[in-house]
Amino acid sequence: MNEKWYAGVDLGGTTIKMAFISEYGELIKKWEIPTDTSDQGKNITKDIGKSIDEMLDALQVSKEKLNGIGMGAPGFIDLSRGFIYKAVNIGWVNFPLKERLEMETGLPVIVDNDANLAAVGEMWRGAGDGAKDLLCVTLGTGVGGGIVANGKILHGTNGMAGEIGHITAIAEGGAPCNCGKTGCIETIASATGISRLANEGLDAHPDSILHAAAAKEGGITSKDVFEACEQNDELALSILAEVGYHLGLMIANLSNAINPGKIVLGGGVSKAGDQLLKPVKANFEKFALPRVKEGAEFAIATLGNDAGVFGGAWMAKRSCEETKM
Amino acid sequence: MNEKWYAGVDLGGTTIKMAFISEYGELIKKWEIPTDTSDQGKNITKDIGKSIDEMLDALQVSKEKLNGIGMGAPGFIDLSRGFIYKAVNIGWVNFPLKERLEMETGLPVIVDNDANLAAVGEMWRGAGDGAKDLLCVTLGTGVGGGIVANGKILHGTNGMAGEIGHITAIAEGGAPCNCGKTGCIETIASATGISRLANEGLDAHPDSILHAAAAKEGGITSKDVFEACEQNDELALSILAEVGYHLGLMIANLSNAINPGKIVLGGGVSKAGDQLLKPVKANFEKFALPRVKEGAEFAIATLGNDAGVFGGAWMAKRSCEETKM
Repeated sequence: MNEKWYAGVDLGGTTIKMAFISEYGELIKKWEIPTDTSDQGKNITKDIGKSIDEMLDALQVSKEKLNGIGMGAPGFIDLSRGFIYKAVNIGWVNFPLKERLEMETGLPVIVDNDANLAAVGEMWRGAGDGAKDLLCVTLGTGVGGGIVANGKILHGTNGMAGEIGHITAIAEGGAPCNCGKTGCIETIASATGISRLANEGLDAHPDSILHAAAAKEGGITSKDVFEACEQNDELALSILAEVGYHLGLMIANLSNAINPGKIVLGGGVSKAGDQLLKPVKANFEKFALPRVKEGAEFAIATLGNDAGVFGGAWMAKRSCEETKM
Repeated sequence: MNEKWYAGVDLGGTTIKMAFISEYGELIKKWEIPTDTSDQGKNITKDIGKSIDEMLDALQVSKEKLNGIGMGAPGFIDLSRGFIYKAVNIGWVNFPLKERLEMETGLPVIVDNDANLAAVGEMWRGAGDGAKDLLCVTLGTGVGGGIVANGKILHGTNGMAGEIGHITAIAEGGAPCNCGKTGCIETIASATGISRLANEGLDAHPDSILHAAAAKEGGITSKDVFEACEQNDELALSILAEVGYHLGLMIANLSNAINPGKIVLGGGVSKAGDQLLKPVKANFEKFALPRVKEGAEFAIATLGNDAGVFGGAWMAKRSCEETKM
């Protein structure tokens, strides 16, 4: 059988997620290995290469089955060279990732940032459902994003496109953000932001059931807030309204500019599902132009942690096809 | 000589701007004809075809010199078919523009909206200076825009990409906008918006020199406001500060998402030059991510009313090149 496979690799600070995915987007095999951040991460490319070979052996498949590797990495990346300027959690500084991984594996490698890969992963095999103009909003510890226009990831002039977590939601007097600015949407709509809003609201809401959540180890999580909403807790409902308002407004403003066909919400916070989707959509519809609104469909991401490996495989597939042309 | 020309056509409610432009972007000949909006605009394509033939005759050049036509039109357009759903100022309803103009001229025609053509015109031969990731903000009677990513116009899922005039600047209590929403950036940063702010501020500023401008025929224009700024008029300065704040914030938010290398301000209001650029840049720098800020350069549009015909010629050239491949 001539069907080719692609390897998707999604590098995180603690684990490396890996998968073989067929050219038709079928998941053949998925596994993960620990991220070895010792020695400034110099073993990582070797570990990946070795693990790919071992898995091929285990599956009794020759290496010729693999057409290429698409890899997602965190940090500042020179995308054309697959060169990592700095990835703090990994230990890399000026690390030629593409070059090294190609050397280890003998396969063509394409590198992109993890949020972008998650977006094309959802486009190909997830909630994006093949939409060629897609906005992916990842609501996790922070807020990330990926923008796909006409089937291609928007990278911008120096690889920063899609950094939608740092769009300013509250221009004056907003909470401080990790990026050094204040009032970024990340300070409101991330898991961290939701916890912050809950903690700040406790004093004004002495009867809130979130006081119990605050007393437990780890304090209030975004999950606690969504659960409290289901019990009509006033504080929790006010937080959900605030998150929905700012997120819906931000997405509408961005959509008036890029006119996506699909808007996918992913990341841990998106597990709240309809509870989150409803206020976000209501505010989106208030602030988007009529035809922009008509063109856009909302969905919750469906691939979860697999979005990155699917996106990696897609990028490798696209890249191989273009090279052949 | 084998050099080919392209015709750029920019359709407005009163005149049709036309030009022959060489494949190298040199302006060969520029002229205009009146827009005949009688009979629901049914003579327009004939007028264009005839005018092109007459101009070729006058220049003693054969029609073979022309490779194609790129035309900008206002209204709602199905870009793939070059079909105009509705262009109120022209009179067209469900008008197959591309088909008709190809029939009249025997040349391949590509149609796009006028703000997008202005953006690629500036990219090719104007202030964009060849930047492949470009945000063009047109500050005229309204606020329009065009986004170029990796050398191509962003169209979005139903041709609405670049409608940045309707990004919400004031979410609650903003002025009503023509689009039916309130607080759009167009209600502040357009010529109309600036006049409105000036008129609204007159009572609170009894000593403003803008009272004299208000008394003249046509009332206060944005030009009056910029002139009053030069004389340190308090009302005028407060308006400039407000326009600069909202425009800078909007452009920063959009830039965090699309990461442009060049930001071009065009349209009548942009003639204020540095006076406008300074507060816009200051606010942009406050709200953009550091690397986004580093990547972006501001410029005032240089092609003025010619941006559309240059953009049309560029689109025709690109389209002909792609078809040949």
